[in-house]
Amino acid sequence: MARSRGERAVVGVDLGGTSIYAVVIDARDGRVLGAAKRKTEAQKGADAVAERVSGAVEQAIAGSQLKRKAIRAIGVGVPGPVDPQAGVVVRCPNLGPSWDSYPLVRELGGRLDLPVTLDNDVNVGAVGEHTYGAGKGTQDMLAIFVGTGIGGGLILGGQLYTGVRYSAGEVGHMVIADGGPLCGCGEAGHAEALASRTAIERDIRAAMAAGRESIVSRLLEETGRDIMTASILGDAYDAGDEVTVSAIHRAQYYLGLLVSACVNLLDPEMIVLGGGLLERMGDAYLEPVRRTAQQHYINKTEVDRVAIVRASLGDRAGAIGAAVLALQRLKR
Amino acid sequence: MARSRGERAVVGVDLGGTSIYAVVIDARDGRVLGAAKRKTEAQKGADAVAERVSGAVEQAIAGSQLKRKAIRAIGVGVPGPVDPQAGVVVRCPNLGPSWDSYPLVRELGGRLDLPVTLDNDVNVGAVGEHTYGAGKGTQDMLAIFVGTGIGGGLILGGQLYTGVRYSAGEVGHMVIADGGPLCGCGEAGHAEALASRTAIERDIRAAMAAGRESIVSRLLEETGRDIMTASILGDAYDAGDEVTVSAIHRAQYYLGLLVSACVNLLDPEMIVLGGGLLERMGDAYLEPVRRTAQQHYINKTEVDRVAIVRASLGDRAGAIGAAVLALQRLKR
Repeated sequence: MARSRGERAVVGVDLGGTSIYAVVIDARDGRVLGAAKRKTEAQKGADAVAERVSGAVEQAIAGSQLKRKAIRAIGVGVPGPVDPQAGVVVRCPNLGPSWDSYPLVRELGGRLDLPVTLDNDVNVGAVGEHTYGAGKGTQDMLAIFVGTGIGGGLILGGQLYTGVRYSAGEVGHMVIADGGPLCGCGEAGHAEALASRTAIERDIRAAMAAGRESIVSRLLEETGRDIMTASILGDAYDAGDEVTVSAIHRAQYYLGLLVSACVNLLDPEMIVLGGGLLERMGDAYLEPVRRTAQQHYINKTEVDRVAIVRASLGDRAGAIGAAVLALQRLKR
Repeated sequence: MARSRGERAVVGVDLGGTSIYAVVIDARDGRVLGAAKRKTEAQKGADAVAERVSGAVEQAIAGSQLKRKAIRAIGVGVPGPVDPQAGVVVRCPNLGPSWDSYPLVRELGGRLDLPVTLDNDVNVGAVGEHTYGAGKGTQDMLAIFVGTGIGGGLILGGQLYTGVRYSAGEVGHMVIADGGPLCGCGEAGHAEALASRTAIERDIRAAMAAGRESIVSRLLEETGRDIMTASILGDAYDAGDEVTVSAIHRAQYYLGLLVSACVNLLDPEMIVLGGGLLERMGDAYLEPVRRTAQQHYINKTEVDRVAIVRASLGDRAGAIGAAVLALQRLKR
């Protein structure tokens, strides 16, 4: 019955700094009917990337074996602030200056002749986890994604909550340790500067620079990487590398403080934690975070009614969520 | 036309540690039609206090010159966590142990033969400011009340947002300075331990104990008070007392950090700041808070779209908000 299913299909795109991932999903159950991946090649500029996004979308649709007219809408998540109402990307530091005020909705809409909607990558990730992932069935949840930075997406009353300037969910820039290390944004003590993968990497590098031994230097050499990926950090942690273990414990502690701050403000049904480290290390990463968080709850009754769980869609959350959001906005 | 007005009147009660304040308001415009105040006399226990609340309500109704049957409902705000669905006070540290699990809704409903609803004092204060005070017309706002402690109430989509365990809005227990001073709750670095009136008092006492001169000791003697009220602190600040000025600047800084954390998470239309110090010192208190907060926003565009304003209902906010909430819940 591919035909009837096709009448409710929708496309989602996760536009990242290194790759573009497009999916076609069945709008009734989130099943992925087709997918395509391309390199972003951000250095070629926004117009060239929009063309590549368009190509990935066409390829995903072709892979789904649905007729093109069966596709209802396209949603795109981009790594930076957006103005969803205007359909404009405000800025994408990872993609370059040609994205400042870039009218992506118009550009893609023109190329693909379909309604296009836009949001930032963590918001669509939160929508994905809420609709088809770990947060399924909840009304009020916060998703926190830990990677190079820390971003969040807020679901309230079952809907993405964007805030008056479309910048809700910026949990990475909540101050949790006044006077702490400088954040990429220029201010000090923000969660991102304490609990991101980048913060862990900074701490390990500082320890090594101070003369402490760590197997991380060997792992970097062996893999030929110049950044400490979640996989490298996970391997070093599993091997009991003291420097890594201590840096990760610090980051877990600060992530716990961040979660507690969000819970004391929102008392939501669920906190979903995602990102490479959580995927690589699983509950070993989650447990200490939960413990620290619960210690700082002001309401210590029924602490487990605020579920703290791992994201379940992995790196497909963004594309799937973008598709879901496109459909929701089309209906409005 | 007192009669037709009466058909939409509702009673609100602010039950505090030292006094009970009851108002009858016109449900269409929030106009106060009658009011009454009594001492709480908490030491006599929950039943005796419930009786006094009941008396204050009757007196406020009598003062409104409305017929008793014109009153639609009663709302009560209490200084502690509640279970609004069960109609039960969970705990009121300021009022004593007889309030643990006290069925206030049943007790008052029995005495007054009217539907009674219950919430905590900061939540009803937020509802008051949202409906008839500084936050009028907003959809998404956070009220933060600074006093002995720091409490908050969250309005989302035009409605009080209570959270899954009815403990949303506990901004006083968000960590903003990991490793900072101990909070009353037993954990360290919470906003309440850094930006409340109690935190200011602690810092001034520490400075005096270390031998620094402050006119606060003379002001305490002259007024015969043993705590540093907002009025005493305001007078010392206005007189340029160095110890007080420095303690207040610290508290303003930390309140600014707290506001920024809430704005980065919620990006709301408005932050309403209330409490004795804000009332006493006005914009002199508000401005440094706003400056610090905006410095930590991750979204630095259109910063003034998140209005940071002073509460406007003063100590009537709670009773008025309790009345509004009672009417809203009656309609559901």
